[in-house]
Amino acid sequence: MMIKEQLQKKINNKTKPLGALGVLEDIALQIGEIQNTLTPQINNPTIVVFAADHGIAAEGKVNPFPQAVTAQMVLNFVHGGAAINVFCKQNNIGLTVVDAGVNFDFEPSIPIVHAKIKKGTNNYSTGNAMSEEDVHTCFLKGGQVVQQLFDKGCNTISFGEMGIGNTSAASLLMSAITNIDIQDCVGKGTGVNDEQLQIKINTLKEVYHFHKLQQNHSGIELLGKVGGFEIAMMVGAYLKAAELSMVIVVDGFIATAALLVAKKQHEQILPFCIFAHTSGEQGHLKMLEKIGAKPLLNLGMRLGEGTGAALAIPILLSAVNFLNEMASFETAGVSNKE
Amino acid sequence: MMIKEQLQKKINNKTKPLGALGVLEDIALQIGEIQNTLTPQINNPTIVVFAADHGIAAEGKVNPFPQAVTAQMVLNFVHGGAAINVFCKQNNIGLTVVDAGVNFDFEPSIPIVHAKIKKGTNNYSTGNAMSEEDVHTCFLKGGQVVQQLFDKGCNTISFGEMGIGNTSAASLLMSAITNIDIQDCVGKGTGVNDEQLQIKINTLKEVYHFHKLQQNHSGIELLGKVGGFEIAMMVGAYLKAAELSMVIVVDGFIATAALLVAKKQHEQILPFCIFAHTSGEQGHLKMLEKIGAKPLLNLGMRLGEGTGAALAIPILLSAVNFLNEMASFETAGVSNKE
Repeated sequence: MMIKEQLQKKINNKTKPLGALGVLEDIALQIGEIQNTLTPQINNPTIVVFAADHGIAAEGKVNPFPQAVTAQMVLNFVHGGAAINVFCKQNNIGLTVVDAGVNFDFEPSIPIVHAKIKKGTNNYSTGNAMSEEDVHTCFLKGGQVVQQLFDKGCNTISFGEMGIGNTSAASLLMSAITNIDIQDCVGKGTGVNDEQLQIKINTLKEVYHFHKLQQNHSGIELLGKVGGFEIAMMVGAYLKAAELSMVIVVDGFIATAALLVAKKQHEQILPFCIFAHTSGEQGHLKMLEKIGAKPLLNLGMRLGEGTGAALAIPILLSAVNFLNEMASFETAGVSNKE
Repeated sequence: MMIKEQLQKKINNKTKPLGALGVLEDIALQIGEIQNTLTPQINNPTIVVFAADHGIAAEGKVNPFPQAVTAQMVLNFVHGGAAINVFCKQNNIGLTVVDAGVNFDFEPSIPIVHAKIKKGTNNYSTGNAMSEEDVHTCFLKGGQVVQQLFDKGCNTISFGEMGIGNTSAASLLMSAITNIDIQDCVGKGTGVNDEQLQIKINTLKEVYHFHKLQQNHSGIELLGKVGGFEIAMMVGAYLKAAELSMVIVVDGFIATAALLVAKKQHEQILPFCIFAHTSGEQGHLKMLEKIGAKPLLNLGMRLGEGTGAALAIPILLSAVNFLNEMASFETAGVSNKE
């Protein structure tokens, strides 16, 4: 019997009606398959938050918050004051913050991964965001972060991000890869108003045409043209996590856009992925539909940082726990259906 | 400034875009209002599982599992082998099991609340399920369980159930109270097939007409006609929890039907209620829509026992935690929107 059938049999023998745990049963099956075991475990679940700045954000056309907020929020993460800190602490999730390219000189002593490529990408309105060499360096560094966590016993990982202006880069990547019109990929991000939204859409339309973005561009080409250092590093992290057969919890809009890029590089990545939530950012649902993903939560959250994943990880634990800890009809002496 | 406005101001000053935590912000506001404080707490969250048998189940027309399973599952709860045990343990939730009327003589020494009314209700196909005196006794005993937990420091409570055949009682109560046709209130419960479902619908139609159920029956009358001891005790528990201004987490189909009965007795109960999940049992969504409830989770679960609530309580904690622990723009030195 294949592991999938063995897992299904184990699930069906638990003291509950057939299928009564719904999506939890699907998740238990998937994690069992990823780990190739009847007793899967969620070990040292960790969220890696990649932070970087975007050249275009200095113009203020696509972002209501000033660019300086990226660095300020990294320091907020370090001091434990952000939403992701609170949720990771509550749910016993490790948190690693990576400076992928923030426009700020952090003290070398602060407890983040110092992996800065540059102090922000170039403004992709007028040229490429980064060189292809930069993209490869990002893949390498993103992969290294994952490898180090894996080596310390982490088998379940998620990626969050912080970068003022990065919903714009994610919208451009999404539009190019899915072929959905750019204006349907753009949302209000962290809170532009209707007038600002129109400026954001117009700006990104111009960028789209300037770079002649198209579906058959490689992931590396797309990241070079309109990517962000945090997004490119996240792509490298996804690829490494799949290579290591880790359980990957996919967060929201930007994390899913990065996954689309990773999927271009490695078609078989989706079986490792569990989708945490449907973001309040409008384009997210469209991306999820494109890849047939059904997220666990739908709480209207649109904060980034990996916060959706942090809330979903207890549900993964519940899935694994019922599989490992519930009694079977036989052991509990409970009668099955007549 | 009213507490609601003060809470909203506190939420808006956290280091996140306005509204970016979505439903978590609504929940934080609601719990703050229930507790009338800017620093709400979830203390000793507890799930009370009421178990009882239903006279009609002995016929086997409405239930694929034999009636003996109710008692067997109570023993499974006591031994820690059921889904609700696993999820309560994982999420640090207290679990209290109440024998409201199981058709079995439990050893007095087992750690449950021994509150048996009778060994199962009368078969409501041919007479009333219970007397009105029984209903009042159920209200009293359900309330006592809640009062005792409250006295020990519990301020957040949920009610689950175990009772072979109890989706039928819940469907009848739902149909009478909401005026939705009985056949649209009946689902597959713990897993009848299509043929069995038709027998279940026909049986309950007959019961409905036999008792001449109608919307202007009082909750006490309805429970007397077609209720269950676990459902009636749950109604008493809801009423006491609201009286004590506790946070009430509403589980699935049967728990929501019981809430509808409680709402007949006390119109202002809904502000205390947070809805945990949308059950896979088809009538549940219709009930939720009738009362305008938007549950936190939708995982296709239909197990009962309070399992939906057990999975939702970490989300309540996240709501309270972000409100209490996140930094504000001022304290974190993060710039707000320009």
